[in-house]
Amino acid sequence: MLTRNEIQQRVTRLQERLAANGAQAALLLVPIDIYYFTGTRQNSALWIPASGEPMLLVRKSLVRARAEGLISDIRPFPSSKELTALFGSEGDRVGMTYDAVPVAQHGWYSKVLPGRSFVDITMLVRDLRSVKLPAEIEMLRYSAEKLCSIFSEVPTFLKAGMRELDLAAEMEYRLRRIGHEGYVRMRAFNQELFGGMAVAGGAANYGFFDGAVTGQGLSSASPQGASLDVIGENQPVLVDFAGVFNGYIVDMTRMFVIGTLDSELQRAFDVSLEIQEAVRKAMVPGAICEEIYRQAAEMAENAGLGGNFMGMPGEQSRFVGHGVGLELDELPVLAQGFAMPLQAGQVVAVEPKFVIPGKGAIGIENTFLVTEHGGERLTELSDEIVRI
Amino acid sequence: MLTRNEIQQRVTRLQERLAANGAQAALLLVPIDIYYFTGTRQNSALWIPASGEPMLLVRKSLVRARAEGLISDIRPFPSSKELTALFGSEGDRVGMTYDAVPVAQHGWYSKVLPGRSFVDITMLVRDLRSVKLPAEIEMLRYSAEKLCSIFSEVPTFLKAGMRELDLAAEMEYRLRRIGHEGYVRMRAFNQELFGGMAVAGGAANYGFFDGAVTGQGLSSASPQGASLDVIGENQPVLVDFAGVFNGYIVDMTRMFVIGTLDSELQRAFDVSLEIQEAVRKAMVPGAICEEIYRQAAEMAENAGLGGNFMGMPGEQSRFVGHGVGLELDELPVLAQGFAMPLQAGQVVAVEPKFVIPGKGAIGIENTFLVTEHGGERLTELSDEIVRI
Repeated sequence: MLTRNEIQQRVTRLQERLAANGAQAALLLVPIDIYYFTGTRQNSALWIPASGEPMLLVRKSLVRARAEGLISDIRPFPSSKELTALFGSEGDRVGMTYDAVPVAQHGWYSKVLPGRSFVDITMLVRDLRSVKLPAEIEMLRYSAEKLCSIFSEVPTFLKAGMRELDLAAEMEYRLRRIGHEGYVRMRAFNQELFGGMAVAGGAANYGFFDGAVTGQGLSSASPQGASLDVIGENQPVLVDFAGVFNGYIVDMTRMFVIGTLDSELQRAFDVSLEIQEAVRKAMVPGAICEEIYRQAAEMAENAGLGGNFMGMPGEQSRFVGHGVGLELDELPVLAQGFAMPLQAGQVVAVEPKFVIPGKGAIGIENTFLVTEHGGERLTELSDEIVRI
Repeated sequence: MLTRNEIQQRVTRLQERLAANGAQAALLLVPIDIYYFTGTRQNSALWIPASGEPMLLVRKSLVRARAEGLISDIRPFPSSKELTALFGSEGDRVGMTYDAVPVAQHGWYSKVLPGRSFVDITMLVRDLRSVKLPAEIEMLRYSAEKLCSIFSEVPTFLKAGMRELDLAAEMEYRLRRIGHEGYVRMRAFNQELFGGMAVAGGAANYGFFDGAVTGQGLSSASPQGASLDVIGENQPVLVDFAGVFNGYIVDMTRMFVIGTLDSELQRAFDVSLEIQEAVRKAMVPGAICEEIYRQAAEMAENAGLGGNFMGMPGEQSRFVGHGVGLELDELPVLAQGFAMPLQAGQVVAVEPKFVIPGKGAIGIENTFLVTEHGGERLTELSDEIVRI
């Protein structure tokens, strides 16, 4: 359970980094960042000075913020004049997460807080949040257990002749009934997701979504996830869902088939398990993210599947794993261009997948905790293709 | 169906407004704005000059953008150097939607496009998008019909002893099966929503959500919507859901009760119907948004329910209706502070509601089209409380 003590640790870690970066304070506006440092996600602004007590100013709901919040100083959002006096003083360097704060918000605070210079602390906050503290790991284990329990029920409802949409709806319904909170937060500006996807067979799989498999979706306005295509026999059925419990997201994928799979797909699946195991072993503190990705891509290449790894040929994503937590797209990313080392306590969804045009998408995904002994699996459920 | 001709109309309307505002171009980055002006929602940037052809630069998926897009010039996203040459020239004023574009995006384009000055065109774009063209109205009618069909099924599954969460899950499941796209887009920076809510009885109803009824949600991380509370007899059961089809969102609320409602709640409901009808009649082109709100608030006040109108006492929202379309929170807003006149073709969800502490939330919501004859109801289903 989230305690005042863990919140205090999170705040202290941020304060140390602000001081080390020469910033006098952080002004946090993104709701889930505010939740992380206070325990309450209301419509509010959070001021964390490099030394001293954080202060949460609440537009709505003050009653709820006070009931849930695990910091002491929670107040109503003041007039802009009062704000000027509350939030630091002229000459201060104030950190803000530029990746997600809109221009209009930045502009308003720049006006209200004259003489302060704003600096981007996106990576500082995201890096800090990527290392999970005890309450978070406990919650991620709980989310994993819940999500696995629904994946294990798939054989009871997957049938030939149902649409991808029907399969997705069955997953969503069952997840929801056991407490899945529904809204899956993503941080990247142009990404969005409705829970997950169920994709069968070999329909073209092009889309905006930053993943190996995007799905066709239901329209050009919502071009991602399950479609109206009917699930047939002997097709790879890829089920990739996130579960959100207490705000914490775990992500996993399993393969199903009604009948049997052709040998090319089966072989690609076997390679995805080999890559997963190599990545898992490599997930120790200090390992370099992009080197893990390169090793995975090389294994795909050596298996003759380089052109199918992590996406449609021509639209391949260059990653093999992504951090999860309060958002689906947290740090670290096991990707080309991410040269940072892994840290103990980071939690990563590893998802080696292949897309074989005309045949379908196949692969595996599990969520792992980075430890000294390699990745510790949180999603404990057999990886094997389930034959129905 | 969306056609090249309607897309062309949309682009032309934007170009006229850019020219009238002395801007040489718009650089649109928000995915749903891009969809509105192109017919495709991929990861991309859209350049619309005040005169000339729009140009869509696509990161992912170019294949899909080209297959769906209803403009001619769709290209791969170029290097930043090429971009400088493509997007206008020094001295240009370039419009951007500051309400939703992150600081980091704005900063990157500022660097890549030296000598251009950026201006905020949020209200210009949102106002333009608020007036629905024929294909949009057709799609909104379709969404309304679909959403009503599921609301009419509620008596078949609402039972005493189920949790709010179970009721929400039944709604979500049925909506999904008939093609609800799931992800409900909201524009406001700090808002988020998972489809809707089912709220029963008199539990305290405090939350960040900008609505009359917020629901308790499942945790402090997702503090909105259905909770684990059990639905009992003789309680007001408020079901408020959005349906998304072809990207277009319609919003409605109906009341249910297993048994009978106490007379105070029944009276508040009757007042909500009177307010809805007064608002509907007032919804003609030229009517001033905040005056409609004031009339509604006055009717609540005169009924002795001023302190319960649109939220918990002390946390009341000061609106009675909100635009819907591709986002749940479009213009116009029938709210204090919105002095603009209504325009024919705008579509507004009108939702007079009351919260009676200890007893529960009650009210009505329908989506209306603004016409010369007042609001034309899109959500055609009886308003009456359904007794089970």
